[in-house]
Amino acid sequence: MTLPERQLANAIRALAMDAVQAANSGHPGMPMGMADVATVLYSDYLKFDPTDPKWADRDRFVLSAGHGSMLAYATLHLAGYAHPTMEEIRNFRQLNSPCAGHPENFELAGVETTTGPLGQGLATAVGMAIAERHLNAIYGDDLVDHRTWVIAGDGCLMEGINHEAIGLAGHLGLGRLIVLWDDNKITIDGSTDLSTSEDVKARYAATGWHVDSCDGHDAADIRRAIDAALADDRPSLIACKTLIGFGAPNKQGTSATHGSPLGADEVAAARANMGWTAEPFVIPADIADAWRGFGQRGQALHAAWSDRLVSSDKKKDFEDRLSGKVAPGDAFKAYLDGLVAEPPKVATRKASENALTALTADIASLVGGSADLTGSNNTKTSSTKPLNRNDYSGRYIYYGIREFGMSAAMNGMALHGGVIPYGGTFLVFSDYCRGAIRLSALQRQRVVYVMTHDSIGLGEDGPTHQPIEHLQSLRAMPNLLVMRPADAVETAECWAIALAQDSRPTLLALTRQNLPLLRYDVTENLCLKGGYRLRSAATARKVVLVATGSEVSLALDVAEKLEAAGQGADVVSMVSTELFDEQDAAYQADLLPDDALIVSIEAGTTFGWERYTGRHGLRFGIDSFGASAPIDDLYRHFGLTVDAITPKILARLGA
Amino acid sequence: MTLPERQLANAIRALAMDAVQAANSGHPGMPMGMADVATVLYSDYLKFDPTDPKWADRDRFVLSAGHGSMLAYATLHLAGYAHPTMEEIRNFRQLNSPCAGHPENFELAGVETTTGPLGQGLATAVGMAIAERHLNAIYGDDLVDHRTWVIAGDGCLMEGINHEAIGLAGHLGLGRLIVLWDDNKITIDGSTDLSTSEDVKARYAATGWHVDSCDGHDAADIRRAIDAALADDRPSLIACKTLIGFGAPNKQGTSATHGSPLGADEVAAARANMGWTAEPFVIPADIADAWRGFGQRGQALHAAWSDRLVSSDKKKDFEDRLSGKVAPGDAFKAYLDGLVAEPPKVATRKASENALTALTADIASLVGGSADLTGSNNTKTSSTKPLNRNDYSGRYIYYGIREFGMSAAMNGMALHGGVIPYGGTFLVFSDYCRGAIRLSALQRQRVVYVMTHDSIGLGEDGPTHQPIEHLQSLRAMPNLLVMRPADAVETAECWAIALAQDSRPTLLALTRQNLPLLRYDVTENLCLKGGYRLRSAATARKVVLVATGSEVSLALDVAEKLEAAGQGADVVSMVSTELFDEQDAAYQADLLPDDALIVSIEAGTTFGWERYTGRHGLRFGIDSFGASAPIDDLYRHFGLTVDAITPKILARLGA
Repeated sequence: MTLPERQLANAIRALAMDAVQAANSGHPGMPMGMADVATVLYSDYLKFDPTDPKWADRDRFVLSAGHGSMLAYATLHLAGYAHPTMEEIRNFRQLNSPCAGHPENFELAGVETTTGPLGQGLATAVGMAIAERHLNAIYGDDLVDHRTWVIAGDGCLMEGINHEAIGLAGHLGLGRLIVLWDDNKITIDGSTDLSTSEDVKARYAATGWHVDSCDGHDAADIRRAIDAALADDRPSLIACKTLIGFGAPNKQGTSATHGSPLGADEVAAARANMGWTAEPFVIPADIADAWRGFGQRGQALHAAWSDRLVSSDKKKDFEDRLSGKVAPGDAFKAYLDGLVAEPPKVATRKASENALTALTADIASLVGGSADLTGSNNTKTSSTKPLNRNDYSGRYIYYGIREFGMSAAMNGMALHGGVIPYGGTFLVFSDYCRGAIRLSALQRQRVVYVMTHDSIGLGEDGPTHQPIEHLQSLRAMPNLLVMRPADAVETAECWAIALAQDSRPTLLALTRQNLPLLRYDVTENLCLKGGYRLRSAATARKVVLVATGSEVSLALDVAEKLEAAGQGADVVSMVSTELFDEQDAAYQADLLPDDALIVSIEAGTTFGWERYTGRHGLRFGIDSFGASAPIDDLYRHFGLTVDAITPKILARLGA
Repeated sequence: MTLPERQLANAIRALAMDAVQAANSGHPGMPMGMADVATVLYSDYLKFDPTDPKWADRDRFVLSAGHGSMLAYATLHLAGYAHPTMEEIRNFRQLNSPCAGHPENFELAGVETTTGPLGQGLATAVGMAIAERHLNAIYGDDLVDHRTWVIAGDGCLMEGINHEAIGLAGHLGLGRLIVLWDDNKITIDGSTDLSTSEDVKARYAATGWHVDSCDGHDAADIRRAIDAALADDRPSLIACKTLIGFGAPNKQGTSATHGSPLGADEVAAARANMGWTAEPFVIPADIADAWRGFGQRGQALHAAWSDRLVSSDKKKDFEDRLSGKVAPGDAFKAYLDGLVAEPPKVATRKASENALTALTADIASLVGGSADLTGSNNTKTSSTKPLNRNDYSGRYIYYGIREFGMSAAMNGMALHGGVIPYGGTFLVFSDYCRGAIRLSALQRQRVVYVMTHDSIGLGEDGPTHQPIEHLQSLRAMPNLLVMRPADAVETAECWAIALAQDSRPTLLALTRQNLPLLRYDVTENLCLKGGYRLRSAATARKVVLVATGSEVSLALDVAEKLEAAGQGADVVSMVSTELFDEQDAAYQADLLPDDALIVSIEAGTTFGWERYTGRHGLRFGIDSFGASAPIDDLYRHFGLTVDAITPKILARLGA
């Protein structure tokens, strides 16, 4: 690179090494290594308007190698975004600074997605690229015409999710996705030779990607490679050959620069080496001016775009769509009324399909899919024709056997905006995508996980397919709404609640097996309170049975037996512990009074149910792995029957 | 295939379709599609002795596509294993039949590993192949000289873990691993064209594999491809072109055969089509004889091997090694004594390294590694030099950024025998390998997960790296020993407990930050009871503080303050809730009496701690995501300090 352009990049390097040094914590190596690439990207390619970080038609930039967060903070600051300020950069990694250790979408408007868990940034970007093509197919080039750029490291490419993500991107032909790989041959443990012998480019090519390499420290070569990528209609991987920690004369090219401050001496040596004479956290005026000029191109494009939007007959629809505000419409109301008129005995997965049939008719932004379990998850409706490379306007994605990739892609769609994603797999395979579910929750995104076959009720497939610990382990996750409806009415209510969330994901746990309808009054969404009294004791209340999903009808049967034995029993349908825990103390105490024996029934682990039963209540569930057998045999085997449960409760009551 | 050989394969097909039909549940498509391949494998290649399924030098056969379990049951039965019997096959998928919906290693001696969760079988096989080469390097060809065979489907190859597993296998040059891919172009949702456009062979080749194709219904072509694979020193993938449901004339080649019974009519048509006239669950004598003859080759090899073993000077060592019985030795005892003599203030991750330094010196079968966090997980010791393709005798594996692949490989090593695997990553990334942790637990394998950076105590890396829900969500998993030691003594004790387990995995949750030594008496392993009274109230006990790991020293400080305020306080170090829950009621009641206020303190979710505190106890923890800041700021921010906790307890006591 020529000196002036190199100096523009050195501004990133200086901020990165200084901020890490000040925090005495962080990762200088990646920002310093990729500074030249990032500078070329911002100067010549990235479409952005620093005065409006949420402009709908901006390019999305994802720093998948999130540990190099100072690259994001430096470029946002230099490019003229309101945040981070230099003061915020000075407070890198300190409490209340938006410049967190890893980039967080909720801290800075210019950060498109939270990254740090390796591989997920790139996989999230795939979802953004899907959303872009989908909305482009609907609204046309005038309104939706942007790219998704990713900077990724070796870690992102080694993680399993990378395989799923690039397979999906290649299959869908997402040509507007460009990945700039920081090909520095270094991981935390040392040389990549320690752990991999892969020809990464050949692997990407095998999945339908355009691949190229460039000298990541040569601006002209970077431009050549990016131009070639732009000209190719496949998604692109550019291996940017870089030196990690470029500019630090004694440490560059080694893992010593990866995750630790360079140290005062090496910082000084790097300054000298780079010809960087400004004080820490000071950017020379000419360099600052040049950086701020990068946004002008995007601002002009933004202005032209705004003009097109104003004159578009799709303006209102587009703005409504991007606002994300949706509500169930007439089809859903008709469905709900019909439920009570003709009570179905259906599995909640089927009830979910029925609700979705109405909702996808009502709400155009719903885009569904499944990780190769479409017929089992019941996720496809007549409104959702396939989305594929020949027709991006479709609303159903065959994700393949890629649970993690699907979930991360859904995060990307939600973050992109204009799309409300839902997708299915078996509940037990939430383990396969848990990392992405966590990022849905952390990033406060409205993603709906349709997780079917939610207990031993799936029967013969056996313990590998039967969730035991999953419901409770997911309930333990912050900001995730786990809902386990008991019948078709509750399932519909849960869907309405899920779509009404503006800052959290929902996971619906649904049965394979048929369940009777338990609720006949749909005037109020009772699931909103998380738990509600489905049955009141006919005689003096001695027991409160708290159950979820398929075990609610079991609890009702147990209650009948208890009443017959003279023991009054309430039944609480605990659809969502999170929502119930958000109710006031009086409501909670009314449902779960101290003077009653509280009994939990759920066909999963009893771990954690003490939250409601207390230490000395009764908990019915399964504290081992499941087994392979027909459903009725399993419920008997695990003691989840009226005949097994009732005597134990009576014994505890001394009755 | 010529008719006689085809009929040998049709025996598999008949059993598969008949068993699925009888159970009215199961997956006939894969067994019928791969029956010819399996027959060739058993007849000509697989080294096995049906009279001794656990012969140490047998070939390992892994049915990664576990839904095709009837292929495993049919071949084991036909090849003359004691189990499954025909009666057991008749009871396919019924309660108490060892012929479960998916193959379970604990149900049948001939099943090497539990499969069903897609991708993991192949990844587990990689671990078996590593163990084989490792033991071969130590004991030589005379005693260890076998292969690992895998039958995998499209699902196994699409899952992200496949990328990690084959990358590891290619890097390590595991030439004795051969994957037979059921390349039938069908997944559950339909044609693979719906979801993938990948050139699978090119991808495998890119990671250092030998690749080939064959007609999966042509025995000669199958042999040709296998012979070529045997001749190649790389791991091999053979794409076996098959028709799913081969033999069922109206359904073969369609996803209709994948996961449902064929139906009586189609079964009848298949029988006619295959020329199979025997009744269901009857194998004609000539076919049965031919199948039972396949084992003779292996039995002869076994006899020769036994002769070599008897005359080997390594016999005792080898047998001891394969027995799996280990105990900490002199180095460990010396280390433990030294701890108390010179109390260190170290992070428990460092204490773990120190314990491991002794244990790896004492115990040769310990093979360690890390998913690219060697220096952070402190998993490498002076006794564990790298294991790589140039030296399989090494005992340390640089797994790369492959948490899931690492964990599945560890399962494979444990299942193989002769190796006790341990491996590290950050606790938060247990989410990335949770599917394999579950299979460690389900399969009852002694795998040790070294999970460091176990709370907000890791500091500045922020919420993506700070576990919140992880400890509780892992404790909810059946048969997994989660241990969170509070100091160097407890860490050593936990390691001793982990190695003493013969039927469950252990997950050690370890700190990044330094902790003081709290225990000075090492005469008894107090962690064995899961929780124990570390401090007894000096005055009348009002409070029991239950804490784990880094919060135990905090609890001791709180207890001091409480005592100063006249409130007697016990402190219980709850190292392992699983072990504590296994103690008798008297022990539990003694530690957690009803007449005291029970208070939990753990720097993670409070979800589930009601198990000990009851509904109305106090729980201190973090019920949101973490934040990026220095450690002390975080503990203050989340109210986990003496000053924040003590007044709340006093207020509750009315004191």
